[in-house]
Amino acid sequence: MKLLRYGPAGEEKPGILDANGQVRALSGSDFEGRGVSLERLDELRALDIENLPVVENPGRIGSCLASVPNFFCIGLNYAKHAAETGAKPPAEPILFSKATSSLHGPFDDVEIPRNSLKTDWEVELGVVIGKETLYVSEEDALDHVAGYCTINDVSERAFQAEMGGQWIKGKSAPTFGPTGPWLVTADEVPNPQNLRLWLSLNGEVVQDSNTDDMIFTVAQIVSYMSRFMKLMPGDLIATGTPSGVGLGMTPQRFLQPGEVMELEVEGLGSQKQTAVAAR
Amino acid sequence: MKLLRYGPAGEEKPGILDANGQVRALSGSDFEGRGVSLERLDELRALDIENLPVVENPGRIGSCLASVPNFFCIGLNYAKHAAETGAKPPAEPILFSKATSSLHGPFDDVEIPRNSLKTDWEVELGVVIGKETLYVSEEDALDHVAGYCTINDVSERAFQAEMGGQWIKGKSAPTFGPTGPWLVTADEVPNPQNLRLWLSLNGEVVQDSNTDDMIFTVAQIVSYMSRFMKLMPGDLIATGTPSGVGLGMTPQRFLQPGEVMELEVEGLGSQKQTAVAAR
Repeated sequence: MKLLRYGPAGEEKPGILDANGQVRALSGSDFEGRGVSLERLDELRALDIENLPVVENPGRIGSCLASVPNFFCIGLNYAKHAAETGAKPPAEPILFSKATSSLHGPFDDVEIPRNSLKTDWEVELGVVIGKETLYVSEEDALDHVAGYCTINDVSERAFQAEMGGQWIKGKSAPTFGPTGPWLVTADEVPNPQNLRLWLSLNGEVVQDSNTDDMIFTVAQIVSYMSRFMKLMPGDLIATGTPSGVGLGMTPQRFLQPGEVMELEVEGLGSQKQTAVAAR
Repeated sequence: MKLLRYGPAGEEKPGILDANGQVRALSGSDFEGRGVSLERLDELRALDIENLPVVENPGRIGSCLASVPNFFCIGLNYAKHAAETGAKPPAEPILFSKATSSLHGPFDDVEIPRNSLKTDWEVELGVVIGKETLYVSEEDALDHVAGYCTINDVSERAFQAEMGGQWIKGKSAPTFGPTGPWLVTADEVPNPQNLRLWLSLNGEVVQDSNTDDMIFTVAQIVSYMSRFMKLMPGDLIATGTPSGVGLGMTPQRFLQPGEVMELEVEGLGSQKQTAVAAR
């Protein structure tokens, strides 16, 4: 299933894409927390989609998740990206988080924060957790995944690295987490480790890689994280970005107002955002 | 007002302490997100508490917040604590987060995670945000605070510092965030920078300080954070711990099953937890 949320910002309604790519309206809980649990997805899967009401003009598409209990990120998870930032490939997954208020629509403007000089892009495979997960093995980890989505893990490099450590400062601004357009359920993504992902800036492709280049796989990440915390239904994990970010360019290049990012993870839908200055 | 949640774990109900220290039942939204917004607190303040039903046997007291959009932490915010960990006092607030699933009742057992050798205690002043907060000045920052609470920011030092950076790994285990017993509204805490806070281990006081020793005040922290993210109603900020943690002792000392922590921030109520091994 391809699940999505349509309507004006703050008033989105849950929907599902039918076989013809039309949006059908869903009733019941929005896509957040237990609204994306494996049990709830099984209920949705049992519906006769072709009998649900067609949404003739869905209009704006919002984040595919209404809110998240946690917005986790894995750092430096592609070898070439680690190299371009000057870091060694990590021996264990690097974990941090974004403020949950950074969750954002996939086609809405990205705001360059006040006092920012180094706002950067990061296309990533997003993983949505479908059940409580603590001490899960790598073998069983993918059974805890509800689905996948495209994420732009927008990052301010000075806030991230030049203000006293801990990356959350550079990852959390409003609009820094475009997510969607779709939550694609895990049954439609048989192998999350073979998905092309790319990002273009003003039409020029700057990131172009495949999730087969990840240092730690989705299964390894979920299992590893579950040694340290209980993952919850609706938790979102951005699994790291490949090379081609502005930080790694010579000379470095960062977002300016008016610049346009387009990005996609294979099968999960594309996003498009224009950078604007925060008011 | 002193707001609290009573009842079995997962079935807590919101209540309020009356002038005699009795619990009175509240109806309506639980204490989370907009349920602790300044507007909602004004509604509660307008109630005639003495006419609310008395809860004769409230039983267990749970976390004073049902859930949090974010569980933020400030690191090394007391000069003596920074010194005991071997770190320099930070030039800017160190910010990180705990997984929101670590939120925990103030009198419930704290679980030492599997494979943990270094589980440690940290009494802290908790700050609950009451309205959306972005780019707020230090002068106005306290007007955005809903209230205060006692927090034990339980920490696993090896997970925090010996597994590839970013402290969230050591801060996020289930039960690592005892919060409460009360959310004390900001009008009853005229000066958050003059509160004694202490923690005892098996009856021996090991932490004993005052929030007047903070390197960055609550107002400075809220204003600083709002440069990097939009804080939301119900966001919880643990503002750092004073010296006296196990990591700073010679020899170092960490929690063993059966050990008992008691802790309090002046005016915000005391907590008591027994350490047990995670299953």
